[in-house]
Amino acid sequence: MTRIHISEVGPRDGLQSIDRVMPLEAKKAWIAAEAAAGVPEIEVGSFVPPSLLPQMADTADLIAFAKGLEGLAVAALVPNFKGAERAIAAGAEKISIPFSMSETHSLRNVRKDHAAMLAEIRAIAELVASQSADSRPHFEVGLATAFGCTIEGPVSEANVVRLAAAAIEAGAVEVGLSDTTGYANPAQVRRLVRAVKAEVGDGRLNTLHLHNTRGLGLANALAGLEEGITTLDASLGGLGGCPFAPGASGNIVTEDLVFMLEAMGYETGIDLEKLMKVRAIIADALPDEPLYGFTPDAGLPLGFGKVAA
Amino acid sequence: MTRIHISEVGPRDGLQSIDRVMPLEAKKAWIAAEAAAGVPEIEVGSFVPPSLLPQMADTADLIAFAKGLEGLAVAALVPNFKGAERAIAAGAEKISIPFSMSETHSLRNVRKDHAAMLAEIRAIAELVASQSADSRPHFEVGLATAFGCTIEGPVSEANVVRLAAAAIEAGAVEVGLSDTTGYANPAQVRRLVRAVKAEVGDGRLNTLHLHNTRGLGLANALAGLEEGITTLDASLGGLGGCPFAPGASGNIVTEDLVFMLEAMGYETGIDLEKLMKVRAIIADALPDEPLYGFTPDAGLPLGFGKVAA
Repeated sequence: MTRIHISEVGPRDGLQSIDRVMPLEAKKAWIAAEAAAGVPEIEVGSFVPPSLLPQMADTADLIAFAKGLEGLAVAALVPNFKGAERAIAAGAEKISIPFSMSETHSLRNVRKDHAAMLAEIRAIAELVASQSADSRPHFEVGLATAFGCTIEGPVSEANVVRLAAAAIEAGAVEVGLSDTTGYANPAQVRRLVRAVKAEVGDGRLNTLHLHNTRGLGLANALAGLEEGITTLDASLGGLGGCPFAPGASGNIVTEDLVFMLEAMGYETGIDLEKLMKVRAIIADALPDEPLYGFTPDAGLPLGFGKVAA
Repeated sequence: MTRIHISEVGPRDGLQSIDRVMPLEAKKAWIAAEAAAGVPEIEVGSFVPPSLLPQMADTADLIAFAKGLEGLAVAALVPNFKGAERAIAAGAEKISIPFSMSETHSLRNVRKDHAAMLAEIRAIAELVASQSADSRPHFEVGLATAFGCTIEGPVSEANVVRLAAAAIEAGAVEVGLSDTTGYANPAQVRRLVRAVKAEVGDGRLNTLHLHNTRGLGLANALAGLEEGITTLDASLGGLGGCPFAPGASGNIVTEDLVFMLEAMGYETGIDLEKLMKVRAIIADALPDEPLYGFTPDAGLPLGFGKVAA
């Protein structure tokens, strides 16, 4: 049985995309409940300055809290070297920096071109390497807008492969592919995962970060799984990430993803019934925020997990 | 480029699942607009008695109307021999009978066990064969509850394979696999498509009828495509089919399916922008009915269909 590692990114990618700030206590309850349901990794927040993202101001507190939860890997997003310093000081076990494959998007978003981003990645890698073994976080570079950009449009696959290799050369332990814009399709996922893996070598690309903006999220996840992807980011209730009207959503929905994986015979280590109950915590704390996902409404199939002769 | 045949089933499976009756003129406008967008086949209704399904009382009128539309194959569902007689009299170009793989479901739904259903299929096949070549409809048997049943739970895959072969032996031109209950997962789709194809021979299983009840519809479609499925049923706006609260839906959404296929490089012959505009007809006629689908809200990706160097 293949183990698939789920990284819950709702407390970061979900919450950063909505206007309201979720109270610290609600965030803690959410993170604790997901950990108790068996979710092995949670990205609890980011070290973007609170002046830009007040929703993320309590990330250091959340890291401290989450590190006390049994069996949970505690991840944080960092936008730059300063963020990495803060994440490491807070004790993050995994740090990820988004590296936008669309240079226009990179310039617009963090005012750095590709060369400047690679210099930043190199500096963070050196900082990480200088930590003692017991406080050295896992360092991943998320190749953002890898499947297309809302400013540039199509993104060159050859450039993604080249920049993935450059990020590894600069010291990232791993790269991940991010469909930031919800542009990906399954054929493209297969092609790009294969091409990047071939370039960076085994074990250097394990993660897909997918959005469900056009409804293809789980089909894209399936294509990735079949190309050897073993880590999938997802957000409980598909929270946030939605500049559009009803129906358009953010990250792929953790509940539906876990249902798909468990139904297919993959092992996630997650108790799906318990996981679905965690939605109530978000619904209570953010009553006006739409929650996505089909499995929680439909429930599990009768006799789920059993096989008829 | 592989051509994938989309069969729009909203006017039948969508409308039969909701309480309200859509006026005949609105149905005609819907069907005409989808045909004009390039949808090659529409299941316009069923010949279930109007006392049971008043929504379908105008199916004969719709067949007559739809046959006047350029390039459209006009399909109807029939529950039994009597329905087949009426469908043929009305001029249907394709007729499908659901054959439930769960015998409990079959007994509960149409009060026939598997033997009685096979006798009905044989009688319909003989009726079809007795028609002159120019009025002989294509005859398909839809293997309903093939992926699980809300009464029996898991359904035996060996039985599905056996019953598929029995339906072909009884005279069906084709069998299709239907995930009536939204229980299917991509691994199961691959396995069952392969097993049925191996048993009934090439060209006898081309169609998947999928529901999106647990959000896996497009992932299941992808698995089917990769096993050689060439016809996919879908419903515009995912209309109907929803005994659950918000979020749980009926058939897979035609708009998202066509987006996935076209993005992957399959050919559907459908103009997606035109197709998405057809939603307005349903929204006007059934203003309280939720419409599903992500692509219509998100819009097409910037530079869709172009490739960056």
